[in-house]
Amino acid sequence: MRLSTLFTKTSKESTSDAASTNADLLTRAGFIHKTMAGVYSYLPLGCKVLKNIEDILREEMDKIGSEVFLSALSPKENWEKTGRLDSVDVLLKTTPANDGSKKKNDAEYVLNSTHEELITPLVQHFVSSYKDLPCAAYQIQTKFRNEARAKSGILRGREFRMKDLYSFHTSEADMMDYFLHKAIPAYSAFFERIGLGDKTEIVLASGGDFSKEPSREFQTRCETGEDHVFHVPGTDVFFNREIAPSKAKPWTNADEPMKERDDVLGKGIIGVDALADFLKIEVERTTKTLIFQADNRVVAVAVRGDYDVNEEKVRKVLGGVSSLALASAETVRKVTGAAVGYAGPLGLPKDVEVLWDESCAGRRNFECGANKTDYHSVNVNFGRDLPEPAAFHDLKTAKEGDLHPESGKPYDVFRACEVGNVFTLFTKFSSAFGFTFKDKDGTDKPVYMGCYGIGTTRTMGVLAEVFHDEKGLTWPEHIAPARCHIVAVAKTADEEAFTKAEELYDALQAKGIECLFDDRLNDSVGSKLADADLIGCPWRIIVSPKTLKDGNAEVKRRTDAEAKMVAFGECVKGEFLR
Amino acid sequence: MRLSTLFTKTSKESTSDAASTNADLLTRAGFIHKTMAGVYSYLPLGCKVLKNIEDILREEMDKIGSEVFLSALSPKENWEKTGRLDSVDVLLKTTPANDGSKKKNDAEYVLNSTHEELITPLVQHFVSSYKDLPCAAYQIQTKFRNEARAKSGILRGREFRMKDLYSFHTSEADMMDYFLHKAIPAYSAFFERIGLGDKTEIVLASGGDFSKEPSREFQTRCETGEDHVFHVPGTDVFFNREIAPSKAKPWTNADEPMKERDDVLGKGIIGVDALADFLKIEVERTTKTLIFQADNRVVAVAVRGDYDVNEEKVRKVLGGVSSLALASAETVRKVTGAAVGYAGPLGLPKDVEVLWDESCAGRRNFECGANKTDYHSVNVNFGRDLPEPAAFHDLKTAKEGDLHPESGKPYDVFRACEVGNVFTLFTKFSSAFGFTFKDKDGTDKPVYMGCYGIGTTRTMGVLAEVFHDEKGLTWPEHIAPARCHIVAVAKTADEEAFTKAEELYDALQAKGIECLFDDRLNDSVGSKLADADLIGCPWRIIVSPKTLKDGNAEVKRRTDAEAKMVAFGECVKGEFLR
Repeated sequence: MRLSTLFTKTSKESTSDAASTNADLLTRAGFIHKTMAGVYSYLPLGCKVLKNIEDILREEMDKIGSEVFLSALSPKENWEKTGRLDSVDVLLKTTPANDGSKKKNDAEYVLNSTHEELITPLVQHFVSSYKDLPCAAYQIQTKFRNEARAKSGILRGREFRMKDLYSFHTSEADMMDYFLHKAIPAYSAFFERIGLGDKTEIVLASGGDFSKEPSREFQTRCETGEDHVFHVPGTDVFFNREIAPSKAKPWTNADEPMKERDDVLGKGIIGVDALADFLKIEVERTTKTLIFQADNRVVAVAVRGDYDVNEEKVRKVLGGVSSLALASAETVRKVTGAAVGYAGPLGLPKDVEVLWDESCAGRRNFECGANKTDYHSVNVNFGRDLPEPAAFHDLKTAKEGDLHPESGKPYDVFRACEVGNVFTLFTKFSSAFGFTFKDKDGTDKPVYMGCYGIGTTRTMGVLAEVFHDEKGLTWPEHIAPARCHIVAVAKTADEEAFTKAEELYDALQAKGIECLFDDRLNDSVGSKLADADLIGCPWRIIVSPKTLKDGNAEVKRRTDAEAKMVAFGECVKGEFLR
Repeated sequence: MRLSTLFTKTSKESTSDAASTNADLLTRAGFIHKTMAGVYSYLPLGCKVLKNIEDILREEMDKIGSEVFLSALSPKENWEKTGRLDSVDVLLKTTPANDGSKKKNDAEYVLNSTHEELITPLVQHFVSSYKDLPCAAYQIQTKFRNEARAKSGILRGREFRMKDLYSFHTSEADMMDYFLHKAIPAYSAFFERIGLGDKTEIVLASGGDFSKEPSREFQTRCETGEDHVFHVPGTDVFFNREIAPSKAKPWTNADEPMKERDDVLGKGIIGVDALADFLKIEVERTTKTLIFQADNRVVAVAVRGDYDVNEEKVRKVLGGVSSLALASAETVRKVTGAAVGYAGPLGLPKDVEVLWDESCAGRRNFECGANKTDYHSVNVNFGRDLPEPAAFHDLKTAKEGDLHPESGKPYDVFRACEVGNVFTLFTKFSSAFGFTFKDKDGTDKPVYMGCYGIGTTRTMGVLAEVFHDEKGLTWPEHIAPARCHIVAVAKTADEEAFTKAEELYDALQAKGIECLFDDRLNDSVGSKLADADLIGCPWRIIVSPKTLKDGNAEVKRRTDAEAKMVAFGECVKGEFLR
């Protein structure tokens, strides 16, 4: 690619997207252009990187499935069948743009944010017998999500490219086999090939409320990542914060004598830290009590004040709950007699079960809401003010410093960016569409499914977050827009040197070594070198009158500090790449 | 590709899409699946064909432009700037699908049906000087059009894939040079490579009201095509019917004596044939008179009854009209004194100019509307009832039998399917965005643009329309989902023969000769052969106990009547392909 043929330019100034490393860098280096918030266009260099990512991904996916290309639009009815038309709040639909008389087709379509709603009935159309299973199909396509906020560059956009793979099986065992022994290894191979292998961990995450199997997230270690991963030291067990089992870092005052219980007026105090300050107690002595509506029951959940309640864990402890949500203000008032914010375990109606997190064990003289608007109870004690709980559970969202309950080891916590995920869907979607198969024994059985996603534009964003330095991008070898970046002096300045540079470009291209050739007329060598650093190809080669005087070109790895002189004749052969 | 790994199946029955050859064939052969009217998904075989088309297209486009990937969504404001938000009636916009409380981002976006509205401001962002020009960028992407009817399979869908190229220039001359000497030759090379070269003609078509240069359509000869192409015999001049200059096939009765003019009552007669029947005259004696509103003027246009008025030609004769449309019923009544359907040239107000088509010349005793509801004037004559027209024009849509006016030769007319088009946009879009460049002389000048489209899914549909026989598809060599289709007996029936077939498959794949391998267990050889014909790879190879007995495989070209036996050892080397 000759840089003189590109309409794009690099930019030294940081962009309006400066808050996002990937967007700022990729914009300045001329890889992407923001159409509007959350929506980006890919410029020639960015298009090349995206193609490199998708080509490698396609090779790995072809080993475990067939490529398809499903429509971006789907009928609303399909989404109604799965009950997701209303529950997926990021869904977009289409309507005619012209509201006047000219519109002729008023149908509304869903712009797919994921494709279970299309692939399930499609495969169902062809599959009827156990002989047709298992099978798997994937696609690489643009998806649409009406994100409320879109501030992470190409990590989370309203329009993005994604590879989504779906598998279909006769049994849970076959689904698990594909999930564990085909999908996950194919993902690992992909991340290895694009240079993220040693930074990417397989992390246990929520499987959704229909699945007893946790999903797996591929999480790339990255300081700017949105996710917190909890690693059990010395093992290959990683949890996403959302499901990490947690034992609180011990805090106990069990030796303290019981003090007299009191209700303290403390109006409009926001947050446990302010409350602890106000009451002049340790924050560990405070208690957060949340009132939940669990189907027809009302449940109170209490965690130590420095923790948050984790709904997924509450759901698990309650078991078999189909709907769980914070109770309405009305319900809270009914069961506690107080406004929201002052709930506590003291004196609740008998039919309101109280679930205690294990962080609340071993405390004396603790605080909790007084079930009286504006009041906090202090010096509360089990055995005196409240019955000793029959059980303590794990109901809180893990935080740094927590222990892994099973091993008792403190977690190693790091930030990470999700680059892929794999889910067992069991029969959730096949049931919605009545998709069964005739088994060997002649009976109809439901089809088991799995789904497996990798955002390819997101992957490009993560690569930019991980591979850069203060001068610009530092792409891995197979991802870079080209392997070599040849910097030439302007043809008008030294035609002979320019011709040698062009000779090198032609020779390397002919050998299949892709190059960017900076043949621009109006840029100084200095600004060309800055651009080469910003664009970030793995190898930079300068061909100038100075290097040619000794019959050399100057070769430098993007990530090395030092350049070296290599005989021009060797360069032409591509020997320097070894 | 092993057929046993595909979840798709062929189907013997014709589909609900039977009215469209491409959709019916491609569906039955397992290449596509209809999501809903005008929206298709591409199955593994179809995905492969689409990829082959797009890869070849990409190679040709890379020679004349840089690949980009623009967003599918764009801000409404961009479409307001070009005035197309209301005028393009096929445009779709997005709104949140969830109308309840969950929606968080209410912005409406346009789903692009074409990308001038994005590429123009994008290139403007980078280009400011004559030094930055010319440049060109293309993309291959899904587009959306809210077609009123969608009945032509993948020829005209509500969602389709398209390659669109845009070029930017300092002058009209440079734009024309790129248009004629880069874009058009690249298009020709592409159609040549995909096997449509000798069936595809470069056809002059409407350039749009902003362009004095006709556009060029690439039209593939095809009996089911929507377009009619008018060829001037012995030349390489082709016109789309919409702009074909036309001289009516001569019809004259100039020797007839003038008869007495009369107004005949003829209520509710629909069409000129019925009118001619009713009046017992030749249809050539009838006259169609249409009343137009041209900006602030009212104009009457008269053509011989067997022709239709061509608005584009009327526009051209009137010159410099910014708006032209059929007059309202109210205006028609005002100028003719009659209901719509009875307009004629007799006794119109003086300020209503009458334009006469040349087909009306040389007639005596002709018919026309009487400007009196339900009445038709007969035996009308120039020189007596009407002044002899000062000029006759070409105002009609050409039809078969017409002559090319310049050469006087009768047109050769054929049906065709449009596979590509190229437009000169002049400064239409750059003006809308205020996109200028600083020229050598320091002045700001508007940028000239061109745009160039090829629908890749449509191209796939045209290939299916052109390349098939009664047994199925007959893909060209570089487009087929694979070059060879290897038919094996079931492994369970004859393991040795199956293993030889597999050996051939592995050997050819290793040589880079892509094969479909019909390794399915549960299908008879007969049904496998029918599938091979339906799927339509260029070469079919049977490896069976029968062929192996003499050490052979049976090789047949899809389009040959006869098969031939080739030594298995030669087959493995791919020698049969020569």
